[in-house]
Amino acid sequence: MLVTRIEADVESTQSPSKLRRLLAPRTIATFGGAAAAEVIRQSRDIGYLGEIWPVHPRRNQIEDLGCYSSVAELPDAPDAAFIAVPKESVVPVVAELNSRGAGGAVCYTAGFAEHGEDGARLQRELRAAAGDMPVIGPNCIGVLNYLDGAALWPDQHGGNRVDRGVAILTQSGNIAQNLTMQRRSLPIAHVITAGNAAVTGIPELIEALLADPRVTAIGLHLEGIADVGAFASAALAAIRQGVPIVALKTGSSELGARTSLGHTSSLAGSDVLWDALFARLGIARVHEVSTFLETLKFLHVHGGLTGSRITTASCSGGEAALIADVAERYGAELPELPEPVTERLTEVLGPRVHVANPLDYHTFIWGDLDAQRACFAALFDAGVDAQLLILDFPDQARCDPANWEKTLTAFQQAREGAGMAACVVSSLPEGIPDQVREWLITEGIAPMQGMADAIRAITSAALIGKAQRGAAELRAPDPRPELAEGCSFDERAAKVALAEYGVPVPAGLVVRDREQAVHAAEELGYPVVAKALSADLAHKSEAGGVHIGLSSADAVRAAVTSMSGLGQRFLVERMVPDAVAELIVGVHRDPQFGLALTVGSGGVLVELLRDTATVLLPATRAELHAALTSLRCWPMLAGYRGRPAGDVAAVLDAIEAIAEYARTADVIELDVNPLLVRPEGSGAIAVDVLLNKAPDETRVAS
Amino acid sequence: MLVTRIEADVESTQSPSKLRRLLAPRTIATFGGAAAAEVIRQSRDIGYLGEIWPVHPRRNQIEDLGCYSSVAELPDAPDAAFIAVPKESVVPVVAELNSRGAGGAVCYTAGFAEHGEDGARLQRELRAAAGDMPVIGPNCIGVLNYLDGAALWPDQHGGNRVDRGVAILTQSGNIAQNLTMQRRSLPIAHVITAGNAAVTGIPELIEALLADPRVTAIGLHLEGIADVGAFASAALAAIRQGVPIVALKTGSSELGARTSLGHTSSLAGSDVLWDALFARLGIARVHEVSTFLETLKFLHVHGGLTGSRITTASCSGGEAALIADVAERYGAELPELPEPVTERLTEVLGPRVHVANPLDYHTFIWGDLDAQRACFAALFDAGVDAQLLILDFPDQARCDPANWEKTLTAFQQAREGAGMAACVVSSLPEGIPDQVREWLITEGIAPMQGMADAIRAITSAALIGKAQRGAAELRAPDPRPELAEGCSFDERAAKVALAEYGVPVPAGLVVRDREQAVHAAEELGYPVVAKALSADLAHKSEAGGVHIGLSSADAVRAAVTSMSGLGQRFLVERMVPDAVAELIVGVHRDPQFGLALTVGSGGVLVELLRDTATVLLPATRAELHAALTSLRCWPMLAGYRGRPAGDVAAVLDAIEAIAEYARTADVIELDVNPLLVRPEGSGAIAVDVLLNKAPDETRVAS
Repeated sequence: MLVTRIEADVESTQSPSKLRRLLAPRTIATFGGAAAAEVIRQSRDIGYLGEIWPVHPRRNQIEDLGCYSSVAELPDAPDAAFIAVPKESVVPVVAELNSRGAGGAVCYTAGFAEHGEDGARLQRELRAAAGDMPVIGPNCIGVLNYLDGAALWPDQHGGNRVDRGVAILTQSGNIAQNLTMQRRSLPIAHVITAGNAAVTGIPELIEALLADPRVTAIGLHLEGIADVGAFASAALAAIRQGVPIVALKTGSSELGARTSLGHTSSLAGSDVLWDALFARLGIARVHEVSTFLETLKFLHVHGGLTGSRITTASCSGGEAALIADVAERYGAELPELPEPVTERLTEVLGPRVHVANPLDYHTFIWGDLDAQRACFAALFDAGVDAQLLILDFPDQARCDPANWEKTLTAFQQAREGAGMAACVVSSLPEGIPDQVREWLITEGIAPMQGMADAIRAITSAALIGKAQRGAAELRAPDPRPELAEGCSFDERAAKVALAEYGVPVPAGLVVRDREQAVHAAEELGYPVVAKALSADLAHKSEAGGVHIGLSSADAVRAAVTSMSGLGQRFLVERMVPDAVAELIVGVHRDPQFGLALTVGSGGVLVELLRDTATVLLPATRAELHAALTSLRCWPMLAGYRGRPAGDVAAVLDAIEAIAEYARTADVIELDVNPLLVRPEGSGAIAVDVLLNKAPDETRVAS
Repeated sequence: MLVTRIEADVESTQSPSKLRRLLAPRTIATFGGAAAAEVIRQSRDIGYLGEIWPVHPRRNQIEDLGCYSSVAELPDAPDAAFIAVPKESVVPVVAELNSRGAGGAVCYTAGFAEHGEDGARLQRELRAAAGDMPVIGPNCIGVLNYLDGAALWPDQHGGNRVDRGVAILTQSGNIAQNLTMQRRSLPIAHVITAGNAAVTGIPELIEALLADPRVTAIGLHLEGIADVGAFASAALAAIRQGVPIVALKTGSSELGARTSLGHTSSLAGSDVLWDALFARLGIARVHEVSTFLETLKFLHVHGGLTGSRITTASCSGGEAALIADVAERYGAELPELPEPVTERLTEVLGPRVHVANPLDYHTFIWGDLDAQRACFAALFDAGVDAQLLILDFPDQARCDPANWEKTLTAFQQAREGAGMAACVVSSLPEGIPDQVREWLITEGIAPMQGMADAIRAITSAALIGKAQRGAAELRAPDPRPELAEGCSFDERAAKVALAEYGVPVPAGLVVRDREQAVHAAEELGYPVVAKALSADLAHKSEAGGVHIGLSSADAVRAAVTSMSGLGQRFLVERMVPDAVAELIVGVHRDPQFGLALTVGSGGVLVELLRDTATVLLPATRAELHAALTSLRCWPMLAGYRGRPAGDVAAVLDAIEAIAEYARTADVIELDVNPLLVRPEGSGAIAVDVLLNKAPDETRVAS
C-alpha cells in the first residue's frame, strides 16, 4: 500500500470550550461573496437568531445586510467566521480574526495541503496565523448546528432543528450533505466537516461535542486520522462519558485507501490496525452508509446494551426464519425462552401456535390489542438485551393501517416499565412510515429500517456497552514517534535478547565448522537442529538453511556441509519435543499506531492460513487471551479431540515478555515463528526469531 | 439439525400451459365469504376485466354480484377459482372444479400438512381431488397478476399494473405482501405464494412463468423445496431462456432452518448444499430483502452481465473511497482505466483532478452538461462490464435539484449507443426520488439504492451471465432415492474398491500378528505404516491405531503389540514419501440433493481449518478444478514459496474416480483423508479411507 507520510498537523492548543463558542455562535462574520450569501440564507432558514456581519472589501451589501470592509471594522469580535475568499487571502483574514479575539473560523476555501507543496506551505502559514483560535477546514463545506440553529454552510442540506441528537463528523463534504438528506428520523444535532483539519482536528471536535449533553452519540466518517494518540484520548473520554461512537472508516480496500490518500491530506493506515484501534476504544465500526445511520439511531434511543441476546416477534414464519438467519449472520443471539414465558405465551396464543424464539405469533390475535399486549409483555420478561417486533407497514396511500397501529400500541404498552431496549424492525428498509418512526422515538422505541442493519446496530450497541462497563480498564494505545531505520539482528542475538526478558528459547551453541557442530550436538544431546546464522538471511528454510531432526554426528556434519554457501556461522540447538501447536507472535511498529502485536497459526504456511489476531500495545493479558481464543487454531491449544492441551499460561507469559521487550528495546519488527507450544506445564519456546530494531550498544556479540 | 422427512408431494402431471390459464384468468369463481368479497374488490381495483362468479351455499350476493350456490350452477368452467371455505369443504369443491374442467384453484384455506397428521391426510385427499388441475396452496395468501390484472388475493397489496416485470414466488404470505409495498420502482409482474405446494410446486410455477416473455426475471423466497430434481430442471430451463433467477433462501442458520420447518411443510436442507445447488444452476443467492429487490431490479433492466468489472464516477472523493471499499468487499473489480480513456478524462477534467478508477471527477464541472457528458462518455469506453454513477439527490421538498438532473442527463446522453450496463447508485438507499428512478428505468439505466446492494446485484448478474453463456454444459444434479441404511467397510476393503476405479492407494498387506507384520514390512520395504483394521474403528488415530514411519522390524513389532486391544487384523503399508499437501475428498448422499462431493485441506485438523468446497454430483472436471482452486490451501498445490507444485492432474483424476465410484456403488458416505498429493508427475494417493455404503456381494474379503 502506498503511504505517503504527511506532516501531522494536529497537536494543538485547541480547547473544547473555545470550540463551543465557534460551534454555537451568537455572532457570525462572513468573508466572501456567493458562498457568504448562501450562509446567510441557510442560517436564517434554520432559525439562527444572532447577528450576521458580512465582510467584503468591495461590496456594500450581501443579501439584505450591509457589508463591513474588514475585520477591524466589525462591531465586535465574532464568535464564528465563515471564510470563502480566494486562498491567498485566507491567512491574513485568519490572522486578523485571531488578533481581534474571534471565537474561530470555518474555512471553506480549498487549495491547501491537498494541492501539492505550495498548498502545504500555505497550510502551515494558516496554522501559524490561527494560533490557538479554532479553525475548521480548510477545504471543508462547513458546520451545521441543528441544536442552536447555526449554518456555517454555504449549500443546501436536509436537516431540521432538534432538541437533542447525534453529531456527525466527516472528512467529506458531499457525504455530509447526503447524510443530512436521510429519511430515517435520525435526529442530527451537528454536522461538522473537518476538511484538511489543518488547525482543529477530529479529537478536539469530539471533545467539544462531549461538552454538550444534548449530543447523544457521535458518528465519524473517517478517511484517516493524523494523531492516533489524541484520537484515542478523545474516544476514551467519550466511552467514560457514555457517549457511543460509530465509525464509517473508508480505505478498507487497498484501492479505497489509495483513493482516500488522493483526496485529503490524511494518512490511510492498515485496515487491521484500524480494527484493532476501534476494538480497543469501544468504537463500533460499520461499512455502509445505511448501517451508519441506523446504528446511530439505535444508539440515540438506547445507548450501549448489556449484550446482544434478543427476542423477536412477528406474525409470519417467513419473517421469523429471515430474522433468525440475519441474527446469526451478524452475531446476535436468540436464546430459548424461559419456561414461564413460554407458558404465558402458550396461554395467549393457543395450541395452534408453536412458541419459540424467534416467535411467529401468527395472525390469530391480529387486531386484538389485549392479546397482542399480553404476548409482547411476556417476551419483555424473557430477560434478554433487546426485544424486536418485526413489522412492515402497508403502502400508506392505498391501505388502511389500523391493525398495524394496534400492534404498535400493544408493543408500546407492553414495554412500559419493562426497561429493556425495544425496536420495531421493518424487513423492507422503506417499511416504516415517517410519522410512525417519529412516534416510536418519542416512546423510546427504536424504529429500525431493515433487518440486517437492525442486528448490526444491536451488536454494535453491545460492543459499546461492554467497553463502557470496562471503561476503568481501558488503555489508550501508545503511538510513539517513528524510529529511524533499524538494523537486523541474527537469530542467536535475537534469542539472547528475548531470553533476557523471560522468553524461553532452545538450548543452543554457535559454531563455525562441522566438528564444532558435532561437539555442540553432543554437548546439547541429540536430536538437534542446525541452522545457518546470518542477520541477512530472512527466509532460512527456503534457502536450505534449516536442518531439523539431526540424530547423529554424521547427520550434523552433512547438514553443516550443505550450508557452506550460507555463511561462516551456524547455530546448533536442541530439538524441542512434543509440540501441540505452532504459533506466530509478531510485533511491528506502525508510524501511526505504534506497536501492534499479532498472534496466529504459525509455521511456514502462516500466509496461507490467514489465522491471525492483532492488538495494539500496550495490551492487557485479558486482551491477549481473547486474541488467542479468537484464532481458528485455538482448539489445538485447548486440547483438540483427545490431544493434550497446550501450555496456554506459558504462551501468554511469552507473549507478554515479547511485548515488553518490543516496548523497551525500540523494536521495529520482531517475528517469533514458530513459538512452539508444548503440553500443559511444559512451556512454550521461541524456536525461530527475526528481529529488526534500533541499533544499540547491547547488541550481543557471538 | 432437525430434519423431518415429509412426503414429497410434487411430481405431478401439472403442466405450464395449464397453469397459464389459472395465472391469467378471464373468469374467476370465488368460494367463501369475506375473503371472497375482498378478492372481488382487489380484482376490480387492479383493473380485472373478466367475469367474477361468487359461489356461496347460503348467500345471495357478495359485493354487488349475485351468488351461485355450487360449482354445478356456474355458467361455465372458471379459469380460476379462489377457495376460502372451511377446510372440510375444500376437497369436495376442488373435486367438483376438476370434474367441471376448471383452469385451476388458489386455496387460501389453511389446516393441511402444516397441521399434524390429520392435516397431512387432508392434503393427500386434496391432491387426489385435484388430479391434473393446478392448485396453488393450500395455506397461501394468493396470486397477483399485475400484467393482465387479476388479484386472487384477499388482502391489501402495494403493486400496480405493469407491461413487463419480475415475478416473485414465495412460501410466505406476509413477505409477499411486504414485497408489494416496495418503494424501489421495481416493476412486479406476478406475486405467487405457494403455501404448502400440495399440488402445484415451485418448479411448475417457474416453468409457467417462463412461458410469458413479459417476465424479465424471477425472484424466489424459499424455505425449502420438495423435489430438488424438478427444481433443477426448471432452473436450467430459465438459464437457457435467459431469464435470471434470484433466491432469498432462509434457513441458513440452524435456528432459521428449524423455524422454516415449523412453518411450512417443506424440507430444510443443509445450507452448504443449497449454495452448491444455486451455484450449479446459475441462481444468485441473496440474504437480505433489500438485496433481493435491488438485484431483481438490476436484472430487470440489464439481465446477466459479462463480468463484474466496473467503473465508477462521483464528484466526491469520499464517495469514491466508499465505493472502492464496498466493491472489494462484495467482489466487483475496479480495473485501471485504459490510457486513451485517462487522456480524454484529463482533457475534460483539467490538471487539478487525479484521474483514476474509482473516479472523483470533482465539482469543477458541476452544472456543466457538456463537460459531464464528455467525462461519462470517456468512461463508457473503458471496456468494463458496468458503469456506475454515484449520485444522491437532495431533499425534494427543500432543495433545487436542477444541477443533479443535469448530471443525470449527461450520463444518459453519454450512454446512448454505448451498450454497456449503466446504473445510477445512491449512497443512501433513500437517495433517488421516485420519478428519477422511473425515468432511469425507461432509459435503460438501473437506479440502484445503496452501494452495497448495487455491487451485490452486479456480482450476481455476472454469475448469472456466466451460467447463461455456459448453459450448454450445465448439468442438473442427480438426486436419487434415499438408500436404506448402509454398512461400514474396513479400510482395506474400501481401498481395494477404490483402487478398482483407478484411485491410487499405498501398497499394503493385511496381517494378523507381529511376525506376519514384519514379514509384510520387509516385502513392502521400509519405512512402513501399521494400522489396526476394523470396520468399526472410525477414529483410528485417536485410538492409537495408526503408527507411521516404522523403519525397522523392532518398530513394527512394537507397533503391532501396542495395537493388540484394537482387533485381530492389521494393515501394513508402504509409507508415501514427499507429499506436498494433504487433502480430504469426501462424498455423502443427501436425501434431497443426492451425492455431494467435498474437497478441502485434509489431515487430522480438517474441522479446525474449515477450508472446504462442496459441489453436487455429477460435476465436470472444470467444476472440480474450480473447487480446488477456491481452497485456501490451493497455493500449496500450485507450488508455494519455492516448494514443488503438487500433481493437480492426478488429484483431479483421483477425485473423478472417487465420484464415479460413489455414483455406481451406492455410496452413502465416503471420506478419503488424507489424499496425499505428491509433486507434479508423482501422483496422489488415498492414504486413509472411511466407507459406508449399501451392502453388496462384491464386498472384498481380506
